[in-house]
Amino acid sequence: MDTLSDIKAIAFDADDTLWDNETFFLEVEKNMCAILSEYGDAQTISKSLFATEMANMEDYGYGAMAYTLSLIENAIKVSNGKIDADKIAQIMKLGRSLLHLNAKPFDGVEETLRKLKNTKRYQLAVFTKGELLTQEHKLQRSGLLPYFDHVVIVSDKQEQQYIDLCNTLNIKPEELLMVGNSLKSDVLPALNIGAWAVHIPYEVMWQHEVIDDFEHSRLFQLNQFAELQQLLIDLKD
Amino acid sequence: MDTLSDIKAIAFDADDTLWDNETFFLEVEKNMCAILSEYGDAQTISKSLFATEMANMEDYGYGAMAYTLSLIENAIKVSNGKIDADKIAQIMKLGRSLLHLNAKPFDGVEETLRKLKNTKRYQLAVFTKGELLTQEHKLQRSGLLPYFDHVVIVSDKQEQQYIDLCNTLNIKPEELLMVGNSLKSDVLPALNIGAWAVHIPYEVMWQHEVIDDFEHSRLFQLNQFAELQQLLIDLKD
Repeated sequence: MDTLSDIKAIAFDADDTLWDNETFFLEVEKNMCAILSEYGDAQTISKSLFATEMANMEDYGYGAMAYTLSLIENAIKVSNGKIDADKIAQIMKLGRSLLHLNAKPFDGVEETLRKLKNTKRYQLAVFTKGELLTQEHKLQRSGLLPYFDHVVIVSDKQEQQYIDLCNTLNIKPEELLMVGNSLKSDVLPALNIGAWAVHIPYEVMWQHEVIDDFEHSRLFQLNQFAELQQLLIDLKD
Repeated sequence: MDTLSDIKAIAFDADDTLWDNETFFLEVEKNMCAILSEYGDAQTISKSLFATEMANMEDYGYGAMAYTLSLIENAIKVSNGKIDADKIAQIMKLGRSLLHLNAKPFDGVEETLRKLKNTKRYQLAVFTKGELLTQEHKLQRSGLLPYFDHVVIVSDKQEQQYIDLCNTLNIKPEELLMVGNSLKSDVLPALNIGAWAVHIPYEVMWQHEVIDDFEHSRLFQLNQFAELQQLLIDLKD
């Protein structure tokens, strides 16, 4: 494990890595399908929503406000324009609830961040894609803000944004370790620029983020966030 | 004017400073009022929209997606839930048009930025509040991106964000000059942290941004963007 000894900064994905997010989106989707049940079965409506989200991605990007706009557009679409305003208001309210998630850290997250911070060996950063205000609010509510030296919120996490992150942190790519639940946006682009990555899968994954598993010499697979302690602290102490 | 000789970075507001933005919002608002005319006069509906926007500010922040969500909510409200889905779809489309503004630079902007860049005396930054993707897209469409060393998009522009900006640019507050159309978000917080400011008013101003005029020893009032050349280049050459 001494291969990790050059790491100077650890960047953490936020949603579904530090706290639960996707299960709340799935809950909203389930309730939205119930509101629209007279216009189709849940599977058809969900499929239509995903198509709407993908068509809107270039304009709206990732996030709860983007999702709410797609929910409304899709409700009008699947009802052939017959849905009444009261139901649209209900769906807006569902979407808005996603702006108020408590962002309660997963077990072991706070303890691990505290121990990593106490080593004073690493710059610690949040590196998350989505909407500025939505992500800032979740971070504030999570109580985790004091552990981070940097908060970097971007509209997408591709290779260029990882290069920019290294510049912000004033490190070389091989000195960065990215930790996240998504192989597509946390792991692959980090590895591609020469950084290291830790993949901690979450129990649910938005279909847009799903790619096939793979192995890589700079990639570590963990089951629990707290296992970062063995990877990054214990072996050096 | 040698008081400006210590300036190391110039930060520019984007909307209504580099390009027109507010007149497009006003045009959308006018069209929205026409769509809703059976539910009230334009003045009443606009007033209700502003109240809706202010009530949503903490959740949604500033930007075209935020505005679109408020447009929809307000349409349902002023119609007492009677509006049909087709009209909501029309209003959504109006809001979405704001994501596709061409962001054509005002007269004199590109020439002035080029000349400022050619002096090699200043770091040049965009410092704008709003939605990440919305602002990134406008900057790309404006063609102005090559002139800037930094693009900093924040959810709000208050004193703390100006302090963070100075840290990002690695300068002291008294080495920053902020250029913008809003006394409230471009000028006042910059002056309050010890930076310099240039105010270039635009012909229209969102009522949320309006504050009384004032004078300050570190504030310059200009009528045209190109006058920055006299202020920052000619007197030194």
